[in-house]
Amino acid sequence: MTTERASGFTLSAVVPRPFDDVVLEVREALTEQGFGVLTEIDLAWTFKAKLDVDVPPQVILGACRPQLAYQAVTSEPSVATMLPCNVVVRQVDESTTAVEAFDPQAMVALGGAAVEDVARDAGQRLTAVLETLTRKR
Amino acid sequence: MTTERASGFTLSAVVPRPFDDVVLEVREALTEQGFGVLTEIDLAWTFKAKLDVDVPPQVILGACRPQLAYQAVTSEPSVATMLPCNVVVRQVDESTTAVEAFDPQAMVALGGAAVEDVARDAGQRLTAVLETLTRKR
Repeated sequence: MTTERASGFTLSAVVPRPFDDVVLEVREALTEQGFGVLTEIDLAWTFKAKLDVDVPPQVILGACRPQLAYQAVTSEPSVATMLPCNVVVRQVDESTTAVEAFDPQAMVALGGAAVEDVARDAGQRLTAVLETLTRKR
Repeated sequence: MTTERASGFTLSAVVPRPFDDVVLEVREALTEQGFGVLTEIDLAWTFKAKLDVDVPPQVILGACRPQLAYQAVTSEPSVATMLPCNVVVRQVDESTTAVEAFDPQAMVALGGAAVEDVARDAGQRLTAVLETLTRKR
């Protein structure tokens, strides 16, 4: 039940609630922070359908705050290859769910200073999303 | 009409044909290389609808080769936040189109050696996609 930087390129939280509930909570929290969910990939379903292998339930939600995306793309068109900002929700066990977002700071590492302000804003909003999840009981 | 590393984190090509044609060509070339297109975002439409601003026609195609994605995610679950691999198609002018893909090598820079083999394979396939586009006349 912590918000932390899991690796060098993600922001993450572990939430003590079931997967399906957390997917809904993440969507709500993203909306509250001004992100639309432009894409949704059911990764477990995709692997089952295409490869007939099983992985824990997990979805990739593609979050986009249009104002930030527009600023980023007009500053550095190549940044479009890193949009939308993915938020992965993954079942750990029946009552525990991991939430992990691509850290916009990694976009700065790759995309340069042109996207620094946008990445800071997006990062603060994603951190707020994770804090919303971990604040609940 | 060259295939090149445009920035530190993308592979790109400039194609002397109109945008709509190139979007179809990219889809075909991705299929030939074993990628499915899991997501498609019409970025210009999104910006127009949400912000009432105009940018050149451009789409983000989310390409995924399930075998590679599965290897990557089982090696390093956080890599899911960088999937699918985005390929951006952007109008330069009426007869010129830019194609830019997120370079899987950037995933190695971020995700570590665990995804090196997968990233090499994905990178070779994306390079083949770009070469297909630039070989045509």
